[in-house]
Amino acid sequence: MRRKAAGGRSAPPEEGGSGGGTPPTVVLVKPQLGENIGFAARAMANFGLSDLRLVSPRDGWPNQKADAAAAVAAPIVEAAKIYASVEDATAELNYVLAATARPRDMVKEVLSPESAALELVRRSMRGERTGVLFGAEQSGLDNDTITLADAIVTAPVDPRFASLSLPQAVLLFAYEWLKGQDEPLSLGRATSCDGPAAEGVALTDTRPATRAELFGLFGQLESELDRSGFLKPPEKRARIVRSIRNMFHRMGITEQDARTWRGIVASLVRRDRD
Amino acid sequence: MRRKAAGGRSAPPEEGGSGGGTPPTVVLVKPQLGENIGFAARAMANFGLSDLRLVSPRDGWPNQKADAAAAVAAPIVEAAKIYASVEDATAELNYVLAATARPRDMVKEVLSPESAALELVRRSMRGERTGVLFGAEQSGLDNDTITLADAIVTAPVDPRFASLSLPQAVLLFAYEWLKGQDEPLSLGRATSCDGPAAEGVALTDTRPATRAELFGLFGQLESELDRSGFLKPPEKRARIVRSIRNMFHRMGITEQDARTWRGIVASLVRRDRD
Repeated sequence: MRRKAAGGRSAPPEEGGSGGGTPPTVVLVKPQLGENIGFAARAMANFGLSDLRLVSPRDGWPNQKADAAAAVAAPIVEAAKIYASVEDATAELNYVLAATARPRDMVKEVLSPESAALELVRRSMRGERTGVLFGAEQSGLDNDTITLADAIVTAPVDPRFASLSLPQAVLLFAYEWLKGQDEPLSLGRATSCDGPAAEGVALTDTRPATRAELFGLFGQLESELDRSGFLKPPEKRARIVRSIRNMFHRMGITEQDARTWRGIVASLVRRDRD
Repeated sequence: MRRKAAGGRSAPPEEGGSGGGTPPTVVLVKPQLGENIGFAARAMANFGLSDLRLVSPRDGWPNQKADAAAAVAAPIVEAAKIYASVEDATAELNYVLAATARPRDMVKEVLSPESAALELVRRSMRGERTGVLFGAEQSGLDNDTITLADAIVTAPVDPRFASLSLPQAVLLFAYEWLKGQDEPLSLGRATSCDGPAAEGVALTDTRPATRAELFGLFGQLESELDRSGFLKPPEKRARIVRSIRNMFHRMGITEQDARTWRGIVASLVRRDRD
């Protein structure tokens, strides 16, 4: 009961945000300190976000310190959902960003918090479910987790002091999201220069793939490539898999696309039997 | 000695910022918790600010907790200057903003953090010295102090959770200031328009595929799909091929990607022979 009422106070995803679609979900991946979870929740509340998901919090759940640090945002902490994997935590989302300062050796779109926020506002306004992944305090997000996201969001920082704390990163993102809500003009600008905008037209008879559909495709393709030997030698497998997944993310895949690809893979591996 | 060296490491006002004039001074008015002073210093360091001034810190000075919370930004805390009044702390500044969520009954210009940052960048570029006043944790800035400022800066927040902590407020301001540094070059907007442009960084070890490479991939994939029966019936072939090709175009394919895909297709169709 209390959870429900609490969630209601802070604009639960079910009821949508300020007329601009469902606000983005915040996913904390393996967060360590309860205090940081609480501070992150508070930053969310300051800027109108409420859907908090945790993947394997180090100190278990519930966490008294998280509640205490959240202060007025305690309802967000109490309503947080716990998951065992990033895949599960993002299963029904359509578009997912990874907050990381280190894109490293990946060909993946990199957005500023500002442009990320505009992209999320734009997508949520056309009914997509969105989310942002934040990594653990010390280690951040690992490459395999980043691979599960459509694009990277990175805040501009002074390179001499580049490390943002977890709650700070959530704060900047949430702040830009609230700002983005108020920028119908910027929306138009983003739309006018963005490649993905053109997809809007084509999306009328389909919809963006959910994470679950995308992961299903990954699973099928990678298991076939394991069988065909393409992913050998083992020490190179992770890098090749990341590269392939990132290409699909860049593609901006729809539900129809995911089915097409599953059909293509099934067809190619079957052909010698016909 | 140590103070001077420390200040020097973090871009002291004397030497100016990144070519855009002297960065703004942060003035904490009657701050209470040492931790918050430290966190504020860290937020300053993250975004290229270094001149910290304190008016009557409650727990005296120096403050061990401030040093500890500042972590890598401890040099900023150690170089902080202490004043007895806001008037003294801002004496040589030309333009001063007051960060407050409550403009109350005052006729005073109210700026967003973003427009405040642009104003400060503009003024510092023409040689003015600027600063921002932040109030105590609980009480904020009183009306008399606000009166000493040229204008008010207020962050947009969800009215249901309007209170930002002191370090959060400093963080948002500092973040916008660093963003504002790039604004004359329109870097911010360029980022928001062409996401793929940012990929340029990651593309250093490869390059966009040529049309010929892309068409080579199309030819291979489509001929294999013809053989496997995926492109039947004939009347649907053109539509399916267009859809697949469009997905590759959206992917923004590199030369390396094209080779990877040719390898994937070859591997999948070969697997039953192994």
